[in-house]
Amino acid sequence: MSSRCNLRFLIPGLALLLGGVPSVLAVWPQPQQIRNSAERYSLSARAFLFKHADVSAVRSGCDVLDQAFTRYFTLIFPESGGGGTGDTGAADPFTVEVNVAEGPCDGYPAEGSIENYKLTVSPGQAVLTSVTVWGALRGLESLSQLVEQDDYGAYYINKTEIEDFPRFQFRGLLLDTSRHYLPLQAILKTLDAMAYSKLNVFHWHIVDDPSFPYQSRKYPDLSKKGAYHPFTHIYTQTDVRRVIEHARLRGIRVLAEFDSPGHTQSWGNGQPSLLTPCYRGDVPSGTYGPVNPILDSTYVFMANLLKEVTSVFPDSYIHLGGDEVDFSCWKSNPDIKAFMKKMGFGSDFTKLESFYIPRYVVEVWKWGCYLCEDTVLEIWKGLPEEYQKELSRITKAGHRVLLSAPWYINHISYGQDWRNSYTVQPQNFSGTEEQKKLVIGGEVCMWGEYVDATNLSPRLWPRACAAAERLWSDEVQTSSVDQAFPRLTDFRCRLLRRGIQAEPLYVGHCKNEYQGI
Amino acid sequence: MSSRCNLRFLIPGLALLLGGVPSVLAVWPQPQQIRNSAERYSLSARAFLFKHADVSAVRSGCDVLDQAFTRYFTLIFPESGGGGTGDTGAADPFTVEVNVAEGPCDGYPAEGSIENYKLTVSPGQAVLTSVTVWGALRGLESLSQLVEQDDYGAYYINKTEIEDFPRFQFRGLLLDTSRHYLPLQAILKTLDAMAYSKLNVFHWHIVDDPSFPYQSRKYPDLSKKGAYHPFTHIYTQTDVRRVIEHARLRGIRVLAEFDSPGHTQSWGNGQPSLLTPCYRGDVPSGTYGPVNPILDSTYVFMANLLKEVTSVFPDSYIHLGGDEVDFSCWKSNPDIKAFMKKMGFGSDFTKLESFYIPRYVVEVWKWGCYLCEDTVLEIWKGLPEEYQKELSRITKAGHRVLLSAPWYINHISYGQDWRNSYTVQPQNFSGTEEQKKLVIGGEVCMWGEYVDATNLSPRLWPRACAAAERLWSDEVQTSSVDQAFPRLTDFRCRLLRRGIQAEPLYVGHCKNEYQGI
Repeated sequence: MSSRCNLRFLIPGLALLLGGVPSVLAVWPQPQQIRNSAERYSLSARAFLFKHADVSAVRSGCDVLDQAFTRYFTLIFPESGGGGTGDTGAADPFTVEVNVAEGPCDGYPAEGSIENYKLTVSPGQAVLTSVTVWGALRGLESLSQLVEQDDYGAYYINKTEIEDFPRFQFRGLLLDTSRHYLPLQAILKTLDAMAYSKLNVFHWHIVDDPSFPYQSRKYPDLSKKGAYHPFTHIYTQTDVRRVIEHARLRGIRVLAEFDSPGHTQSWGNGQPSLLTPCYRGDVPSGTYGPVNPILDSTYVFMANLLKEVTSVFPDSYIHLGGDEVDFSCWKSNPDIKAFMKKMGFGSDFTKLESFYIPRYVVEVWKWGCYLCEDTVLEIWKGLPEEYQKELSRITKAGHRVLLSAPWYINHISYGQDWRNSYTVQPQNFSGTEEQKKLVIGGEVCMWGEYVDATNLSPRLWPRACAAAERLWSDEVQTSSVDQAFPRLTDFRCRLLRRGIQAEPLYVGHCKNEYQGI
Repeated sequence: MSSRCNLRFLIPGLALLLGGVPSVLAVWPQPQQIRNSAERYSLSARAFLFKHADVSAVRSGCDVLDQAFTRYFTLIFPESGGGGTGDTGAADPFTVEVNVAEGPCDGYPAEGSIENYKLTVSPGQAVLTSVTVWGALRGLESLSQLVEQDDYGAYYINKTEIEDFPRFQFRGLLLDTSRHYLPLQAILKTLDAMAYSKLNVFHWHIVDDPSFPYQSRKYPDLSKKGAYHPFTHIYTQTDVRRVIEHARLRGIRVLAEFDSPGHTQSWGNGQPSLLTPCYRGDVPSGTYGPVNPILDSTYVFMANLLKEVTSVFPDSYIHLGGDEVDFSCWKSNPDIKAFMKKMGFGSDFTKLESFYIPRYVVEVWKWGCYLCEDTVLEIWKGLPEEYQKELSRITKAGHRVLLSAPWYINHISYGQDWRNSYTVQPQNFSGTEEQKKLVIGGEVCMWGEYVDATNLSPRLWPRACAAAERLWSDEVQTSSVDQAFPRLTDFRCRLLRRGIQAEPLYVGHCKNEYQGI
């Protein structure tokens, strides 16, 4: 234990001016406030335990924390063989005391969940205080990133004080399991890595044109006839429950998306007459278009499906898509043309789309359709000039908004493109302070046209970490992408140690390389 | 066994005109000539054996073939649990008879090795004829790709006749183990996948600026001080021998590259005074530049190192690099300036480089230096207009040439960029037929700035397969990239089945997905 006590009040970003502690600032994403010093304390896996503070609203039996203690013990001491919380009855164990102000413990993370935490590391103990169990998870993650090993392999942790909270409450990651099926393990591993970066919403774009892997209870033919394979390329109800629970234990919301009326080709396989038959002149062409908006059966089906989906997925939101609807098939269909005439829509098919889209759609507000106050819109298109205009426009109309346009990391390119993600400024647009508060967060998207389990992990990590920091950390403190580089390089090596197949940022090495298996 | 016998004489590329056999043409790369028919024969792992023809120049005890029989048995029958050649004494086994015209068996594949083979599949047997064991390996690979399983899981093979040989003799793949260390397993797995695509030269860019992982017998300090880590990030002599042998058994040459005088920063760590000290005015700046060409000790060292390297690597060629030499450090050094004056080089540092570069360098011929007749030059720079001009220029001067410029597949981009590799035309430049014959092949390069074992395999495969076919197959027969697409899609699924972490080309699925582990 070092007796040298150069207490250093760090404003991250000015660290280099103050000198002193040589180690790179270890936590990713950057906490809002972190002070540490060169003073450090040895840690032993045999004398380390987690405990609930006497005043905590949460105790043993809270599975979110029980599971987290086990998980973080192994993450902190990877060589300790896993399991247990280290309480071997040793005298003077290093104690991590966790004090949660409010239960419950058995609920789900939600919009507005308070993820604040305070973490103090001092001789022989760490004290973690939070409002909710979700904040405690964030604090445990930070704690696990403060533990280092010296050249001799000995574990230690520096004297540290952290006060932290996320800049944005919605920090999402989208996976697409329709363009390619993703095995369950790939999804679970992604959730693990999300938790390491404090991402808190898993946007599951579960079905789309090419395949329908979601095994519906009410409409089993949807996956039976719409999945790539009815047994090997589906998500059973059990699989879905596993994903939801694995996410919950990591404080991650699962936002399921059932995109319609476009992006539904595969739905038609198991639900005949759902999709609009396209016409060539007077004759059906044999192909199908978007969901048919003029049949009552359509709405019976959609309502039933959504009723099931909302019962299966506990989050209070479902994403309904509504994007990229190709009007040409609707235009070609005589019944639809007649309907348009009857309804007085003229030739404006956006009106037909608005007729279809339920009032709680989440979509790009480019069609000018009516939306409820509590709708959240996702901005997914466009270059900076374009999406900044959209941000202005949508927030001016009083709607809450999510940004994903600059974070389509399925768009790969040669070189350090993580820097493009990192330098995004989500609130840089013309608007009042009130407007800027309507930006509730964003998400990094990994669309699946060219992605499956063979390349998902190296394509996601560590590139998605850039957006993760942009969404959590203070923008002024994390304005330098060059200062982020060494931190992200280290964080990437940590991800490797944790079994995440994260690709390199640039030339170099990690102590423990990925061996490939 | 089907009795229907629609014998079909296929010119690949016209297959669709003839109709008949519905299956996609299975072999990648496309053989020069292949005819198959709908007639097919069942195969059983319990009644399948390889044997040497009575007249073969090669028999049991030839390890290249013994090992290949074992390997291909498992590739053909993946569910059979591995090992053995299937000779269970069953009556009427399907026999693969191998007839090699010339030994030896215990040699190494070399420039000019004859890889031709003929393969005939008829009832109860396949006959494989080749000139060398290397040709036999190519034939076994094709045979393994002809075996399919029907919907019931039963193995079969169609009546087939193949006459095949490579268009180009040099079909290489470059790996860079200096920018990132690649674990031995990653290299061996790459060799496996190369063999599946009939690539036959492993260009091992083993050392460079950032690290020196090659553990030299004579100069152990090179890796001790130049590797990322002297134990965990090196290739021992044993590792190198494993790579060479693993390659040899697959008919792959190992072309080691020790690039100099540039690209040598890491050499200076373990070999002080090798590199040129750079100057700022009259004072050494503390940094170092290319190898110092004016010291005798440099040439003693280089000669010794290369003597060792040529004894370790059995191929008759070593790649000596010689690319991207930055003259600014040489310019700044007073001793070198004096030397230039003494030698009458003026201020032309290309003359100094020519003074340095041994007569058997392999490099881009842009410096106009003198080269021996038997030097082979590698064209690695430039857009098509540029490299086509280089091809004209170099072949006009009578030099043999390799093309890699359009195949830097470390340059990733969004979408199906394999198509860019596939549509390269290596002999499309202004020149005589004689000149065009001087194009002896090319190589696909995976430089390592952004690549290590976490992303090597999905970035290599199946994108490298495009160049593999361009280098093996007839260009007219493989002129349609759209026809290649379904074949490469199938081949990619086959690679997955064989345990290669090959990424998808586009939306879809394979029966067996990569599970991630």
